[in-house]
Amino acid sequence: MRTELCERFGIEHPIFGFTPSEHVAAAISRAGGLGVLGCVRFNEAAELDEVLHWMDANTGGRPYGVDIVMPASVPTEGAAVDLDALIPAGHREFVDRTLERLGVPPLPEDDRRDGVLGWLHSVARSHVDVALAHPVRLIANALGSPPRDVTERAHERGVPVAALAGTAEHARRHVANGVDLVVAQGYEAGGHTGEVASMVLVPEVVDAVGGQVPVLAAGGIGSGRQIAAALALGADAVWMGSCWLTTAEYSLSTSDSATQRALLAAGSGDTVRSRVYTGKPARLLRTRWTEAWNEPGAPEPLPMPLQNLLVARAHQRIALAGDPGVVSMPVGQVVGRMNEVLPVAEVVHRLLTELAETLGRLGDMR
Amino acid sequence: MRTELCERFGIEHPIFGFTPSEHVAAAISRAGGLGVLGCVRFNEAAELDEVLHWMDANTGGRPYGVDIVMPASVPTEGAAVDLDALIPAGHREFVDRTLERLGVPPLPEDDRRDGVLGWLHSVARSHVDVALAHPVRLIANALGSPPRDVTERAHERGVPVAALAGTAEHARRHVANGVDLVVAQGYEAGGHTGEVASMVLVPEVVDAVGGQVPVLAAGGIGSGRQIAAALALGADAVWMGSCWLTTAEYSLSTSDSATQRALLAAGSGDTVRSRVYTGKPARLLRTRWTEAWNEPGAPEPLPMPLQNLLVARAHQRIALAGDPGVVSMPVGQVVGRMNEVLPVAEVVHRLLTELAETLGRLGDMR
Repeated sequence: MRTELCERFGIEHPIFGFTPSEHVAAAISRAGGLGVLGCVRFNEAAELDEVLHWMDANTGGRPYGVDIVMPASVPTEGAAVDLDALIPAGHREFVDRTLERLGVPPLPEDDRRDGVLGWLHSVARSHVDVALAHPVRLIANALGSPPRDVTERAHERGVPVAALAGTAEHARRHVANGVDLVVAQGYEAGGHTGEVASMVLVPEVVDAVGGQVPVLAAGGIGSGRQIAAALALGADAVWMGSCWLTTAEYSLSTSDSATQRALLAAGSGDTVRSRVYTGKPARLLRTRWTEAWNEPGAPEPLPMPLQNLLVARAHQRIALAGDPGVVSMPVGQVVGRMNEVLPVAEVVHRLLTELAETLGRLGDMR
Repeated sequence: MRTELCERFGIEHPIFGFTPSEHVAAAISRAGGLGVLGCVRFNEAAELDEVLHWMDANTGGRPYGVDIVMPASVPTEGAAVDLDALIPAGHREFVDRTLERLGVPPLPEDDRRDGVLGWLHSVARSHVDVALAHPVRLIANALGSPPRDVTERAHERGVPVAALAGTAEHARRHVANGVDLVVAQGYEAGGHTGEVASMVLVPEVVDAVGGQVPVLAAGGIGSGRQIAAALALGADAVWMGSCWLTTAEYSLSTSDSATQRALLAAGSGDTVRSRVYTGKPARLLRTRWTEAWNEPGAPEPLPMPLQNLLVARAHQRIALAGDPGVVSMPVGQVVGRMNEVLPVAEVVHRLLTELAETLGRLGDMR
């Protein structure tokens, strides 16, 4: 199904697929959607550059985008090492104690890797620099409008900028800040999300800014019926993230099979919206790790980016442990629909088949 | 738009409208939907009987239903006066202190009305007895499957039974209990609601029980686009409650204009899911009253039906005060779309016009 937005982006289907895996992103683009690579995991600009070269060689000339994590207002920040000093000792002790209780082994003595630093403003800026040297067709920002100069530099290269919105007010602000596409991200979505559910949020955002910019619906979308519902609500396309986590191409580390096992087994009620992952409310798979933060005596999560730094090594330990019961993974309520590992091309095929059936059914109701 | 379900119920449009007002319910039925009268406010069977006689005379022969509030398992309960003894003094003191602080005057000395008792099992049973003596076309239960004998008595009279479900598991249980229609009520809905949003819940319930019984979508629906989205998700019809609260016909007491003013001014972010109203999580308009229960030192709400009894007189005081800032009212996130007072017929007309436009737009996408 080709819409006006598809023409504009040179894609076949109104499906934007967010994923931290370049293999998944490339497969989404090859399948006719727009693969959007999440950059937060790249601590080093050179590492992202290498992966984008791989994308250039493996998307068959199809368009792709990148997703960065950058607040519009630059926070006071130094290097990670300065910020580390701001983390209370009690929080570190809680994390260590909890991981020990959950049976998560410490990292090997010789493991000196940093945790994920992509949440730091300086690191996210380096992602933009690298991305703009590649033929990216979209820069999306997961934390609202990017800083004005970033948007201007993208526009100079002819690259549109997207921003996630959890309220109509966010969406209006994004448009005022020069953002070209708004992703309306409902309560049911994985990752950072607000309180208003997609059924209410999407038409509200469409009514607020739909005349000015395209609106993508995110949150709760993992089937053709749900894409049709998003289009009914007035969205120009959908933005999907969760459903790619159980594709055959998804693999960032050796522990991902444990994560996939946990996701395949989870129902729609097995997520939680929590500040544990980044300091801002984000929907995660509910596991013994997230539950530990709700127990009596657990500390309040720290603000971003301190919470990110606090849990960075915990996430490495959890990843190495490979225990499906102690996963730390953002995912939406649509996880209940993710019940088998399929290649990306098959996922897209099923989405489109059900979408066509649904549009046919609705068209016949006229 | 007439569907198979419409044929079965003898209605013109796949719109079920829940409301505590007989004037609104009758107007929904006259407009071609199925008006469903909420019975919880009737303490006396005779009072409900009188109102249903009025419905019989004012629905122009169109079908209507009733909504009761009855747990499947009969709780240990005595008369309201026995249960009163189970309410801790500290809770009563908190309520009195809070109302005083919020400027809500006490009831007049001579006001000896009971609070709403319809949450009591014995009272809900009397509602069923009365309703079955009238030509009701649906008995819906807001607290899951009704007790088996209630469903059997309804079936003997040829009256189908509906039950609200917040999970696919609830829905399966309802069907096993002989329920004829399942209302999938998403997180964004007003009143009792679970954690899973409509975008995810509706297709999940459809997949679980849709082959056996019709599924109605509830939560977040207040426009034709949202009805189309619900149909896209596989619902056979929609169940709408919030949007009738700002209709011209809605008036249960002299204070309702204050409630309507509060609802008209509220945005989609101005609701809260809380146990304050009944002891079970229910979505309410967020006001100074609901916020007071979140403050440090506020007690935990009591379990149902003790919380209902605790706040019954508080609700009367709040109603008499008529202050839009201290309203106690269940409403969904779709309140952000309720911005003018319109007659029910006009609301239905706008819903149908936008639904037809949306189905046309989607049909053209094929």
